[in-house]
Formats: sequence, C-alpha cells, structure tokens
Amino acid sequence: MPQLRVAAFSISLDGLGAGLRQSLEHPLGVGGMALHRWAFATRSFRRMHGEDGGSTGVDEDFAARSFANVGAWILGRNMFGPIRGPWPDTQWRGWWGENPPYHVPVFVLTHHPRDAIEMQGGTTFHFVTGGIHEALNRAFDAAGGKDVRLGGGVGVVRQYLAARLIDEIHLALSPVLLGQGEPLFAGLDLPALGYRCSPPATGELATHFLLHRDEGGAG
Amino acid sequence: MPQLRVAAFSISLDGLGAGLRQSLEHPLGVGGMALHRWAFATRSFRRMHGEDGGSTGVDEDFAARSFANVGAWILGRNMFGPIRGPWPDTQWRGWWGENPPYHVPVFVLTHHPRDAIEMQGGTTFHFVTGGIHEALNRAFDAAGGKDVRLGGGVGVVRQYLAARLIDEIHLALSPVLLGQGEPLFAGLDLPALGYRCSPPATGELATHFLLHRDEGGAG
Repeated sequence: MPQLRVAAFSISLDGLGAGLRQSLEHPLGVGGMALHRWAFATRSFRRMHGEDGGSTGVDEDFAARSFANVGAWILGRNMFGPIRGPWPDTQWRGWWGENPPYHVPVFVLTHHPRDAIEMQGGTTFHFVTGGIHEALNRAFDAAGGKDVRLGGGVGVVRQYLAARLIDEIHLALSPVLLGQGEPLFAGLDLPALGYRCSPPATGELATHFLLHRDEGGAG
Repeated sequence: MPQLRVAAFSISLDGLGAGLRQSLEHPLGVGGMALHRWAFATRSFRRMHGEDGGSTGVDEDFAARSFANVGAWILGRNMFGPIRGPWPDTQWRGWWGENPPYHVPVFVLTHHPRDAIEMQGGTTFHFVTGGIHEALNRAFDAAGGKDVRLGGGVGVVRQYLAARLIDEIHLALSPVLLGQGEPLFAGLDLPALGYRCSPPATGELATHFLLHRDEGGAG
C-alpha cells in the first residue's frame, strides 16, 4: 500500500521544526539551517543538488531512504516560496531554479489559485486550493502506486497529523537549541492519534526516530 | 566552582518532562514512568534503591555522573509528594520511606511553611517559602563546596532556567511519545538565555544531551 510519509524532517532538541521570519534570505526561517546540517552533509542531498561527495553512514541511509519510492510530494505554500497572500504574478517558480530536485508532481497547498508550472526534470508544481484532503487524493493519483512525501512545513505536517493521515514520520533530531521557531509537537497528543516511536538510530550529525501509526489508530 | 546542575532529567521525544495528573499512584504523572525506564535499568539507580545488578554502559555513566559531587538538592514541592495546598499534618514524609536516596540536605520549594524533617541516612528535608533564590542560597551554603542538584519538576526547572541560574543540564531523551504532560521547552528561548547543546551520547535506552550556559550568558 502506498503511504503518506514525512521523511528527513529535522527538528531541534527544543522541538522546533523551523525558525521564525522566513524570507528569501532565510528559506528555513532564522537559524533554521542549523537543523538541516546533517542532511546537507549526506551523499544523497549533495547528489540531489548536483554535487559530489558527502557522507555515507547512518545519516546518508536515512537521506537515501527519504527519496526512495516517492511518486509525488505535498508542500505547504511557504515551502514553495516566501510570498504571502495572492500571487502578484507568475515570476516566482520556487526556491530551486528551473530544475527542482523533485522530478515528480508536487502539490502546493495554497488559498490562492494559480496555474500549474511545468519545470525541467519532471517536476510539475500544482496549486491546490481545496485543502489537505484534496491535495492528498490528487497526490496519490499522481504517484502511480508509489508513496506520497509530505515535505512540510511544520503547520502542514501538524494538520495532516491531527487528521491521522500520515503513515510514517522520520524525524532527524539535531543537537541544537533554536529557541524561537515553529514547535512541531505543541498541543498534539500523538499517542492518542495512534503514533508510536521506534528506538533511535544514531547518525553522525543527527539522531533519527521513526514514528508509525498503529493499524487501529486510523480514523 | 560549585554548580547548580540538573541531571538525569528525562524527557519524551515530544518534549514532555512529566505526565499529567500526578498522584500517589502516579508520582511522575500518568505515563511519566516510561520516560525514566533508562534510569531504572542502571546500576547506580538500582544500588540507590538497594538492588543489585543493572546496566553498566552509557546510560549508567550518566546515572553515576548525576549523583557525583552533589552536596544538596532542590526539589519542587510536587517532587516531594502529591499533597497540594497547606500541609494538613506532618504525616507525609516524602515518596521514599524513612531512608530517602539523597543522604544530603534537600530544600523543598513550597508556599506553605513546615518544620524541617530529619530522615535516616543523612537526608534532611527543609521547606523553603522564600522562592527560588532563597532555596539556591541555602542549598549552596549547605552543600559545603559541592554542587547543588535541582531535581525538578518541570515547572521549577523552567523557573531556574528563565532566571539563568542553572549551569548545566543533562537531558535524557527517551524514545517515547507521551502526548500529554508538562512541556520543558515551550516558550523558553534557551539560546537567548545563554545555553548551548553538546553532541549527543547514545545510551542503551536513552539519548543524552548536555546543555551548558555560556560564560557570557550569566545575567
């Protein structure tokens, strides 16, 4: 069965999944880049960005796993860019240039309609105004039997968690204190939503946890 | 220099340091015991409770370290017992029986005065109504040049953190989701308070983090 997965989702020790004040200069919010240091060091992430080298240990195993068997992505609008409110024009085409590292259909949640954008390398951005269930249905349709990966941000992951729609979450805990940012867990009762946590795997720069939803937790 | 230390302080992956609804039956709140599984498995904790055996790896190293060079303790009132409000009588003498595992002076923060209780084995419970600074001063005086260990609970640790009075915190992150309980980090900007986090040490049942306050962070 294809799954809805969150993977390589980085959090700080103080439970924050992104910094505050996202902008063109700080796509992950102020300080947010420190959460992702482990990922940028891996071979898979470097290859994805057209670079050689990179680590090959536990962190890399999780990075590689995060990209495996993904047939479509879902992103919150802020993951696609720093623009808020109605689209002023069609100039903004994502953070990643003309050949984004997805290579599959990407469904962007937004309140503001916009025509799909076909990029190079197989990525097409679709803009979904009908909410998280519509995005999920369209993504599974497009994924051709593969998994759908939910990229974030924190607010979108929390919405899908609260709706019990996520099958697996891989959290990469970075040994940093962010202090200010978007808390992933606040007010979410994950055991009540059916989630359980596996023992951690220790990577070079992060500690990895897998959360799964119990069969009985579906609702 | 003697330090104020928090040690072997267990938190869940979702950042909770205790469960809710503490009672005689649930001294750590509902579900809270799962956070401390790593500790109860160690040789130091077992010895402290008069039992043989126990683990001898990384978890044990941190457990042993938590008890080393401690000249006095500070506890929030709920750590001492489940009674709320004025003391109805002098019957409650702590969770631990007549020979508590402290063996040094213990300063209990409370709004309700009570005479000190001298227990067996060197533990004396002193009840401090003057607030966290008074408790700290009295504890350092009593510690005879050794460290003061702040045992908790979550609310008291947060108060001492916000006042920048803690020199070192050892957090033991247990791979469990608690869902409901007392969040340790919520609303605390630890980097702004001068705290930094070391790379983790992987134990058998928990992942250990040390937080230190920068020299310049004292205020």
